[in-house]
Amino acid sequence: MAVTTIDIEHRVSYGETDMMQVVYYGEYFHYFERVRNELFRSSGRTYKEFEELGYFLPVRHADCRYRSPALYDDLLTITCTVGTWKKASISFDYTIYCKERDCLIATGTTELVCVNKDGRPIAFPTFFTDALTS
Amino acid sequence: MAVTTIDIEHRVSYGETDMMQVVYYGEYFHYFERVRNELFRSSGRTYKEFEELGYFLPVRHADCRYRSPALYDDLLTITCTVGTWKKASISFDYTIYCKERDCLIATGTTELVCVNKDGRPIAFPTFFTDALTS
Amino acid sequence: MAVTTIDIEHRVSYGETDMMQVVYYGEYFHYFERVRNELFRSSGRTYKEFEELGYFLPVRHADCRYRSPALYDDLLTITCTVGTWKKASISFDYTIYCKERDCLIATGTTELVCVNKDGRPIAFPTFFTDALTS
Amino acid sequence: MAVTTIDIEHRVSYGETDMMQVVYYGEYFHYFERVRNELFRSSGRTYKEFEELGYFLPVRHADCRYRSPALYDDLLTITCTVGTWKKASISFDYTIYCKERDCLIATGTTELVCVNKDGRPIAFPTFFTDALTS
Repeated sequence: MAVTTIDIEHRVSYGETDMMQVVYYGEYFHYFERVRNELFRSSGRTYKEFEELGYFLPVRHADCRYRSPALYDDLLTITCTVGTWKKASISFDYTIYCKERDCLIATGTTELVCVNKDGRPIAFPTFFTDALTS
Repeated sequence: MAVTTIDIEHRVSYGETDMMQVVYYGEYFHYFERVRNELFRSSGRTYKEFEELGYFLPVRHADCRYRSPALYDDLLTITCTVGTWKKASISFDYTIYCKERDCLIATGTTELVCVNKDGRPIAFPTFFTDALTS
Repeated sequence: MAVTTIDIEHRVSYGETDMMQVVYYGEYFHYFERVRNELFRSSGRTYKEFEELGYFLPVRHADCRYRSPALYDDLLTITCTVGTWKKASISFDYTIYCKERDCLIATGTTELVCVNKDGRPIAFPTFFTDALTS
Repeated sequence: MAVTTIDIEHRVSYGETDMMQVVYYGEYFHYFERVRNELFRSSGRTYKEFEELGYFLPVRHADCRYRSPALYDDLLTITCTVGTWKKASISFDYTIYCKERDCLIATGTTELVCVNKDGRPIAFPTFFTDALTS
């Protein structure tokens, strides 16, 4: 069954903050990866299995718009949605939200390219395109 | 004397890599921050002093385009250039290059907004605009 | 009601691994902090509140014994137990276990000292000693 | 020529701090790795080459004693000294010092075990024992 969006909850740890008392801007890309990983899992095959089959998805482009700071101990809701498909690349869109403070924290996107173990771009396997297409 | 560009060298550590044998995509934003920090220092006043004077520069937007993987033990040249000034925001452009492998690793930008300690946007102090304008 | 031990589950993310294909040794201290944080919460008062009341618990000593590598996508069970109390310090013991692979990953300890906002050691507040003593 | 101690300088970045306004306790293990890496390099063969020859040095035990907080923008002097040799393991001792503030920041040790690519303990290669023995 195709999956096109998922969300996870993530508790902000102390080590993710910086001395401005907010989550460090580089941490958001870890959050993006965490929810992307769960989108894979929910599609029926984990990204780990994807790699074991000889496919890799390095990130080609990433961006994040920081709208309101995430704070220590916030319970964040991180959403990942399948964006645009190209022949050998796929984009994902992200939203980070803090329900308790009713606050949009950040939005972002990543574009990933499908490569083999030699780093050469290849077409996505059909099990993957089937699973992540509505 | 005004400064508009600077570069630093950075040795890739083991802890910056991931199991794809390359630098993890979130680490590049730490690199951007490191060189941005040195751009401040070379302008005559450190970012630390900037904060001590009651100004803060949280990141509002960041993006990175990954062109070729950075590898463990690479000696990277990370360049930061002043980009576009707006009333209460400033953008910086970054280039990451590996001279030894003659390889462009990544390019990116960050947009930072000037705020006071309450998080309210304020105009940049003149010592700052003077120092970073050619 | 006093709490003296707790465990959490943690999914290993890609960004926590290094090129040896295992979790980087520095990441375990983030895991320790995560479960320590939940031990506080389960005691009735969060560490965040603890700080808001003017108490801080910087780490004075930490150690970790790595027994078997944690792998990407492992679902780890991380346990924290209250160790030894001293007048102004407390130690916590940790165990990291992977149930799916029936494998002990690591054990460790941290010793934290209770200080005020000026960094001066002070006695623990009674609400804290009451909550974390069996 | 045998090398048994080395030091490096490291500028504390913003991303290494946490909301207690000091360097996060997990970051010190990254510092230890950085200087250990340079100790290898100064011995005539890099750790990268060591791995390329089929040897790996995972960390078996690590500890750190935090004596005074490291602060953002501190220029730290990080020293690594060869400690105890055993048949298939070696320990390193570390000291982190801030010259500008004349302040001992931390001391620590790591014990690393020599394994082959299957993770099996093996004796150190002689080029390594020769290089790091006085």
